[in-house]
Amino acid sequence: MRVALSLARRQAGQTHPNPNVGAVLVKDGQIITQGITASSGRPHAETIVIENAGKNASGATLYVTLEPCSHHGKTPPCADAIIKAGIKTVVIACHDKNPQVSGGGIAALKKAGIEVIENICEKEGLEVNRGFFSVIEKKRPYISLKIATSLDGKITSPHSRWLTDEAAREFGHLLRAQHDAILTGSGTVLADDPLLTCRLSGLEHRSPIRIVLDRSGKIPKNAKLLQDGHESWVMGHELPGAIEEITKRGITSVLVEAGAKLTSAFLESGLVDKVYWFRAPIVIGKEGLCVTETLEKLARFKQIEHIKLGNDSLEIYECSQES
Amino acid sequence: MRVALSLARRQAGQTHPNPNVGAVLVKDGQIITQGITASSGRPHAETIVIENAGKNASGATLYVTLEPCSHHGKTPPCADAIIKAGIKTVVIACHDKNPQVSGGGIAALKKAGIEVIENICEKEGLEVNRGFFSVIEKKRPYISLKIATSLDGKITSPHSRWLTDEAAREFGHLLRAQHDAILTGSGTVLADDPLLTCRLSGLEHRSPIRIVLDRSGKIPKNAKLLQDGHESWVMGHELPGAIEEITKRGITSVLVEAGAKLTSAFLESGLVDKVYWFRAPIVIGKEGLCVTETLEKLARFKQIEHIKLGNDSLEIYECSQES
Repeated sequence: MRVALSLARRQAGQTHPNPNVGAVLVKDGQIITQGITASSGRPHAETIVIENAGKNASGATLYVTLEPCSHHGKTPPCADAIIKAGIKTVVIACHDKNPQVSGGGIAALKKAGIEVIENICEKEGLEVNRGFFSVIEKKRPYISLKIATSLDGKITSPHSRWLTDEAAREFGHLLRAQHDAILTGSGTVLADDPLLTCRLSGLEHRSPIRIVLDRSGKIPKNAKLLQDGHESWVMGHELPGAIEEITKRGITSVLVEAGAKLTSAFLESGLVDKVYWFRAPIVIGKEGLCVTETLEKLARFKQIEHIKLGNDSLEIYECSQES
Repeated sequence: MRVALSLARRQAGQTHPNPNVGAVLVKDGQIITQGITASSGRPHAETIVIENAGKNASGATLYVTLEPCSHHGKTPPCADAIIKAGIKTVVIACHDKNPQVSGGGIAALKKAGIEVIENICEKEGLEVNRGFFSVIEKKRPYISLKIATSLDGKITSPHSRWLTDEAAREFGHLLRAQHDAILTGSGTVLADDPLLTCRLSGLEHRSPIRIVLDRSGKIPKNAKLLQDGHESWVMGHELPGAIEEITKRGITSVLVEAGAKLTSAFLESGLVDKVYWFRAPIVIGKEGLCVTETLEKLARFKQIEHIKLGNDSLEIYECSQES
């Protein structure tokens, strides 16, 4: 299952509005083949491993990070393919909460006499598809907020453009690759004219859709992110309307990389699920701009991870309901 | 040596202006006795273990965190006592940089035919007596700065008196016990009327001397820290004059627990060796006061540790020379 999960994780941000699924087929204690949902969301990981294995799938055990589908969508149901291939046991990380599936895949497999082992690494399975599940449960994408500050909470320094070093910035690019879309405000575009692409070597093709909230049409047509040929959406909506529109367009996960004003607005809206707080080991003092300069409301988080990145560090927080 | 170091660490803040030393006497692979410098700085750890062991010291190995003294101070030199006791081997964590000793203790032992093994856990040995060495090398105490903020660098919240929870506050009390003195400004005394004592159960007797910088004589006589019978110094000096005076009075380590103004002044002065940054997982926003509201200068640190304390965390930084 760990192999299947790591396969699924690799494809984060690439399969929306569909979930990213990893599957591994094991026979006689050996992995015979493995698969990941393709970038367009089709074919499914289960279909891939079954096709790869051919007749060899008979009697094998399938490890899959999400309950196989049981409904006829763009493709025939995976549950049928699994039954037809003669697979003996199916190990599943988590249920598909999509009302069209929700237990139906498991029921179909069991009915056909297949042994089904459920909820193996369930927490990790839910995390891998946190965006897909967020849309089902909260009717909005999973929203991550990226913040990079000094120790005293400042996002600008009179002394340098970047607060953090290379390692932290590269991690930021990896986060971009793992989300369906990246969202910023018109102020950031006007101030920095950023590309907001993933520029990690080998992952350039995984740049997310760029979304700019530009209420008053301030963004010039020659902004870099409108010129580089990669997809960008400029939207006149405010929060939370912008999120509704983004949800309609099939986005399941959003990374917000914005200035103090929009960052504060997101924190205030209670729409944030996770905060990636990059922290440079410097104290800037009164000349810097505080990340929450306009925030009116207290927000309380829970630290779930602390990662050292060169001289900087990354604190990962979950936002609790009270915020 | 690790046992000796942990003995020495226990006595941090209790022996100034003398170093806090731990000693362990080992014979036939067994610890026969151990000792720590007494609270007044006398007797020395070496004297204690030799007296404890009596005739049994002959042929034993002494582990000691600091080079034994070779000069006649208030007590006869430890090196002489070690030789007289017939100790065979002496293992030393670090040299005593005090010009009156500096290698003299080791030379005396070697001259008497004792095997001397030097620089075992040297870094830890230097750290244990960082205050004692700071006075020798920098002519001032080792200065630690305690800061407790929200994620966005605020030290006050309109919603609560304490930003951090119990675990972080208890750790703060432990830090007090480990320093010779605790320093604050008149503003903090006027605003909070704090005791600044160590209130950890069993360590109440280890409260450090309280120092209040009160340039314009604002502190009322009925301030709690002037009334509780424990030692307090109210000083009219500014930085760095205050530190010179404190050094003269035999203080080797100071914990600064102050408001935004004095904290910024210390960071600006370049007098800070270590920062203990307690961080509550909340974002306060525009109503909070930033810890560096008056800081004019950039300060760059190096994170050496990150400790999770309940919901809060503690980041420990060393201040590099450029700050």
